[in-house]
Amino acid sequence: MTRTRPLRILGIDPGSRTTGFGIIDLIGREPVYITSGCIKTIPNDELAGRIGIIVRHITELIDQYRPNQTAIEKVFVNVNPSSTLMLGQSRGAAIAALVLRDLPVYEYTALQVKQAVVGHGKADKKQVQHMVVQMLKLSGTPQADAADGLAVAITHALHGQGLANKLGGLNIKGGRLQNK
Amino acid sequence: MTRTRPLRILGIDPGSRTTGFGIIDLIGREPVYITSGCIKTIPNDELAGRIGIIVRHITELIDQYRPNQTAIEKVFVNVNPSSTLMLGQSRGAAIAALVLRDLPVYEYTALQVKQAVVGHGKADKKQVQHMVVQMLKLSGTPQADAADGLAVAITHALHGQGLANKLGGLNIKGGRLQNK
Repeated sequence: MTRTRPLRILGIDPGSRTTGFGIIDLIGREPVYITSGCIKTIPNDELAGRIGIIVRHITELIDQYRPNQTAIEKVFVNVNPSSTLMLGQSRGAAIAALVLRDLPVYEYTALQVKQAVVGHGKADKKQVQHMVVQMLKLSGTPQADAADGLAVAITHALHGQGLANKLGGLNIKGGRLQNK
Repeated sequence: MTRTRPLRILGIDPGSRTTGFGIIDLIGREPVYITSGCIKTIPNDELAGRIGIIVRHITELIDQYRPNQTAIEKVFVNVNPSSTLMLGQSRGAAIAALVLRDLPVYEYTALQVKQAVVGHGKADKKQVQHMVVQMLKLSGTPQADAADGLAVAITHALHGQGLANKLGGLNIKGGRLQNK
């Protein structure tokens, strides 16, 4: 198998207010930091504005950094139904941006991310942040949501380059559009 | 105020499995049928595939029919949290398609739609279907989800051309993308 450029993974941690992201290259077996950050929506903004910020910024990231694979954290359904709906809407917009650029999308649970990055499933956010800094040899500590974005990208890199849990983003066939 | 072409409204009724849509023109004060239908995802398809079908088909509809305004039904949060999450993801993908084409997005509750189309908030789906057929002088009856898409478009047409409840789809400003 030949590869013209390294595997570049965009990891996304979706949230109802803040979407964390992290981009890494996989050079040989080593994850290498490219960028990370947070997409913050305006709390009192209208829904279309919030969705627009997420989908446009993720599209910009893709166009600027040209990842070839993406990984997104599976989310917990919240006890509050309207929070769950908002989280779903944010996550749907993020995945829409990924599939519109024909990127394969892989999903990992928070448990898988913690196990991959820290080594056990009971790790807290600070431990995840700490291990992300260590693994990527960062000089500073990214914000918690950005670190979670990086952590899901690292998880994908470590999962045999993500052959498991593929969401099928490359194969948008099927579905029926029925007029009238 | 001059208008070069009539108000063309794309109405969307989002669902976790089926997304109904309807397009009408507003000629003077009269709603005129253009098209309607259902976007059905494959029940056991992977999430990225389902999101892809919704966002791509709505984008195709926009590019083919060139609506200048859009209206989407507000959804009930379901008792089942994972259904609510799926509904949110579908709705987020639909709104992403609308805002990526710079279309203004308006929201209406099911109550507002029933009141606008049938005249009272306790109408059932059959009554909504019946009134949509009457108001648009259709020769056949659209499927229930397609009729709901048409009904939300009609609701927007009747709401003073939608000056209320604007979601702000044209004004995607704000939000912060913070690297590192």
